[in-house]
Amino acid sequence: MANLLHRRQFTIEWGQCDPAGIVFNARFFEFFDWGTWSLFEAALGVRPRDLSDVFGIVGIPLVDASAKFHSPAKFGDEVELTSRVSQFRRSSFDVEHQLTVRGALAVEGRETRVWAARDAADPTRIKSQPIPPEVAARFDI
Amino acid sequence: MANLLHRRQFTIEWGQCDPAGIVFNARFFEFFDWGTWSLFEAALGVRPRDLSDVFGIVGIPLVDASAKFHSPAKFGDEVELTSRVSQFRRSSFDVEHQLTVRGALAVEGRETRVWAARDAADPTRIKSQPIPPEVAARFDI
Amino acid sequence: MANLLHRRQFTIEWGQCDPAGIVFNARFFEFFDWGTWSLFEAALGVRPRDLSDVFGIVGIPLVDASAKFHSPAKFGDEVELTSRVSQFRRSSFDVEHQLTVRGALAVEGRETRVWAARDAADPTRIKSQPIPPEVAARFDI
Amino acid sequence: MANLLHRRQFTIEWGQCDPAGIVFNARFFEFFDWGTWSLFEAALGVRPRDLSDVFGIVGIPLVDASAKFHSPAKFGDEVELTSRVSQFRRSSFDVEHQLTVRGALAVEGRETRVWAARDAADPTRIKSQPIPPEVAARFDI
Repeated sequence: MANLLHRRQFTIEWGQCDPAGIVFNARFFEFFDWGTWSLFEAALGVRPRDLSDVFGIVGIPLVDASAKFHSPAKFGDEVELTSRVSQFRRSSFDVEHQLTVRGALAVEGRETRVWAARDAADPTRIKSQPIPPEVAARFDI
Repeated sequence: MANLLHRRQFTIEWGQCDPAGIVFNARFFEFFDWGTWSLFEAALGVRPRDLSDVFGIVGIPLVDASAKFHSPAKFGDEVELTSRVSQFRRSSFDVEHQLTVRGALAVEGRETRVWAARDAADPTRIKSQPIPPEVAARFDI
Repeated sequence: MANLLHRRQFTIEWGQCDPAGIVFNARFFEFFDWGTWSLFEAALGVRPRDLSDVFGIVGIPLVDASAKFHSPAKFGDEVELTSRVSQFRRSSFDVEHQLTVRGALAVEGRETRVWAARDAADPTRIKSQPIPPEVAARFDI
Repeated sequence: MANLLHRRQFTIEWGQCDPAGIVFNARFFEFFDWGTWSLFEAALGVRPRDLSDVFGIVGIPLVDASAKFHSPAKFGDEVELTSRVSQFRRSSFDVEHQLTVRGALAVEGRETRVWAARDAADPTRIKSQPIPPEVAARFDI
């Protein structure tokens, strides 16, 4: 049993780069967010904007994010972002991202997100919920 | 009778600049948006996030925006953004912005926004509404 | 003789949208920038990052930009951006952009850019230069 | 001996928030970058854009970044970002950031950066360099 990998290719744009001519660090976290939504759409067959309605959640908020920057990505580079859920826990999960430039690993990222719904006791608050087993199962291939 | 001017000073950040070492053009429109919200708060004494509730609108969506780029703003530049409503019409208004670097005009911007509420006939749609005279009056000094 | 049209499809991402659930206005100017670089690459067969070296310029800086927002683009929308040079003048040119959502025009944009090189008399300054006729010719189809 | 703390207050802007009405995660990494530059300016008395020239480096590139998101920051929130160098090593250092909303910790961040110069043996590459003791000393108070 392995983890569903989602791959996404795109080109680094001028406006994503900083005065050093390389992707500004915060943009990689934006890319990771793209990767997670795409991965979920690929796994669940549900459009990201329908995720809340289909599963009765408010979303999959991020509680922890990190990145290791091995080498830069530059304006015009064609990059590939690979995303997979490395672990599902009761109500949270980890997504691992790898961004490669011409096949070489440039940036590694990790996000921890929770499966979150409105708190029945206080609808102004959100609360983590058990991840439905049928959801987690869709990420195994 | 003159227009209330709102001034805001800030420093150009690394991540706002592009590989040419100057502010990436789209960021100026982000700055203009900052200026408009600040101006409205200064004029109305209402926090931007309370604007909808206080006035029964969904917001002040942008319908037209433009900028003239006279000279660049660079990393570390201390800039001043001046914003004012140049004209109120029945249900729309124009905001003019000037961004100066060390006193010299660098970028001029203009936004046209509408005073918008939910359409009573179809709440899934929004519709421009007459701007309350007491709102417009607060922008005169 | 017509203008070379460049088309680019992409999906609206979560992080490109604001609390109204629609693309934040400044992001459209970022998209227009994407469109211009892509159009130039398609027309000239030169990678954007090689444009300066190949043509002896410092770039194609923006001097004027505008947008009309007809209808919003939302998270998950698949959009198409169409970009073309509408006019070449001696040393400047206009790029027109149209962004459609499911075939309907959502946003129109226009950029005026200059063909800019270092000033021979003062290399710390940049100066507009005549656009080579062979460059402009590549945008006719 | 303690670490110099740099504090910076700002207001959360509309365009920094996502459809959930809270700051989009990548923006916090942009804020951390603001904090690091401000801290270095406060400690060294050198403008960020002069840092390279004054110290003969190409910059302080990021090699690792992480954040823990405890609670959201919303449109209009007045936040405080506190930044300090928690550790200097031979040629790298850690910067810790805390973002508070009305005094409550909302987001914690950490960056690891290197003191980097051009490689004498190959000027197309950059290489970490020993951090001058007089630089590190300026962060003690």
